[in-house]
Amino acid sequence: MPDTEFVERLLSGDPRSIARAITLIENGGEGSAALMKAVYLKTGRAEVIGITGSPGAGKSSLVDKLALLYKNNGDRVGIICVDPSSPFSGGAILGDRIRMATLGLDKNVFIRSMATRGNLGGMARSTVDAVAILDAAGYNKIIVETVGVGQDEVEIVKTADVSVVVLVPGMGDDIQAIKAGIMEIGDVFVINKADREGVLRTQKELESLLALAHRPDMWNSPIVKTVATENKGIEDLQNAIGEYYAFQSGEAGGSNARRRSIARWRLLELLQERLLADLLDSDGTREKLDELAGEVAEKKTDPYTAIEQLIAKK
Amino acid sequence: MPDTEFVERLLSGDPRSIARAITLIENGGEGSAALMKAVYLKTGRAEVIGITGSPGAGKSSLVDKLALLYKNNGDRVGIICVDPSSPFSGGAILGDRIRMATLGLDKNVFIRSMATRGNLGGMARSTVDAVAILDAAGYNKIIVETVGVGQDEVEIVKTADVSVVVLVPGMGDDIQAIKAGIMEIGDVFVINKADREGVLRTQKELESLLALAHRPDMWNSPIVKTVATENKGIEDLQNAIGEYYAFQSGEAGGSNARRRSIARWRLLELLQERLLADLLDSDGTREKLDELAGEVAEKKTDPYTAIEQLIAKK
Repeated sequence: MPDTEFVERLLSGDPRSIARAITLIENGGEGSAALMKAVYLKTGRAEVIGITGSPGAGKSSLVDKLALLYKNNGDRVGIICVDPSSPFSGGAILGDRIRMATLGLDKNVFIRSMATRGNLGGMARSTVDAVAILDAAGYNKIIVETVGVGQDEVEIVKTADVSVVVLVPGMGDDIQAIKAGIMEIGDVFVINKADREGVLRTQKELESLLALAHRPDMWNSPIVKTVATENKGIEDLQNAIGEYYAFQSGEAGGSNARRRSIARWRLLELLQERLLADLLDSDGTREKLDELAGEVAEKKTDPYTAIEQLIAKK
Repeated sequence: MPDTEFVERLLSGDPRSIARAITLIENGGEGSAALMKAVYLKTGRAEVIGITGSPGAGKSSLVDKLALLYKNNGDRVGIICVDPSSPFSGGAILGDRIRMATLGLDKNVFIRSMATRGNLGGMARSTVDAVAILDAAGYNKIIVETVGVGQDEVEIVKTADVSVVVLVPGMGDDIQAIKAGIMEIGDVFVINKADREGVLRTQKELESLLALAHRPDMWNSPIVKTVATENKGIEDLQNAIGEYYAFQSGEAGGSNARRRSIARWRLLELLQERLLADLLDSDGTREKLDELAGEVAEKKTDPYTAIEQLIAKK
């Protein structure tokens, strides 16, 4: 069990305890499971906003401005910035400090970057756990910002209550590249840098793509134009997010089915992680794994036969 | 065991058997393990080139032009296009047909898109298996093109012999957004659409980032400028790829250590997938999972306690 005092400080919103808790869940293992058991039932009050889009779309500025607006409205805002392409937590921490300075260093804003830990994924799981920690600690608006646009990012953004997809004008190629997978998850679309040329064209293209998209919940995803660096359109974005949140929390939204499917996905992620950890923790398995990796590399055996040996050993 | 005749046709390079084999490994399970055991020891002759970069950078055109150049040199070229953000294999197949028409419908070029299967990852594993199938089937240049720029894509590109990162000019933001994680994996950098404004600035920025990067293998990643749509710079790219391949295959490259670490990563991926499948296949586990997902969604229990129940049940 984690230290009761630590959990209490965490639940009261103490930033240092929150930071420590997130590091704990990033590292995984026993400690993190015990911690999550202690805080999980305190979660469920926060509104979680996922923000994704192409690199260079200006997501960070947009998130900062939105967070500032929420903060000025009296909300407590948590920001989780997911950057799976960066193996460096050092860089992330520096970036966090710069952003903290912009947003104001007080108890009502918490910002944290999460970088890749090792090669085994788990990024989606640790992000969801970090959101739960901020939720339990009393942050009522939690923004999850992703840097990449791959499969993990889509999974992460899907677990939010409201998903925002950010585009920039003048990139016809880009909309196509963003593809149906990302288009489908957008509850709200933003065209940022809307003072640039080509806004109208991007908007038309987006509208025609959205007209083709089929949403089971009958929501028409709005398109909001912003210039984040000049603080333009941020209130419109806030309103669009609020409207979707109200819509999906209502009768029509079926948010219970959504919560259930998120819970199922999360259990599967956790199971994978735990089953592998249990296997590797058994005596001599890591050594055997290294030995078999060598044999596979030299083509003395194939990977499928190798894993059967590892599983049989257990 | 898979049908011996099928495996023989596959090894002789029959496109229909290859397509069937890739579908089999995408679906996973028993059949795919038996197939991979049958072909794995025939692999290891191909040169594998991974190509990644921002959406909209023109990767597909670049890959098509490079493939055509290889083909005209007498190589047999396989292309695997990884698009984790697209849940639709239908769209992928249509795209493949259009590209096949450009590249020429013959035995010396094989192209296949791979889309997301379900929510449980496995994309990296199935891509690596598809590369092994093409390798065993006698394709000597295999290009793996990724659409996204997330963690999975980085993992996939890392398993190639040569990793190419594609940028476009005039996107100062973008280089920053691409971050160290992607920068580090680039053995060769391409500035595509090099007839656009801002090439020089992008090149300078890239050069200064590369000057900071530390490569344990002492390779200086070259920067190649291309205009893929006009077939410009493609030979330079081919030469740069060839030089890195020769370098890393040589004494200095330590490619044995690299193969070993890829094998290790691959065993871990496969283990995760297999352990979860074994658990879910045991009687009543799926029903119990659905039931627990409901309880977690309603906050009657927490996810960590839930998975312990599932594991104990086994």
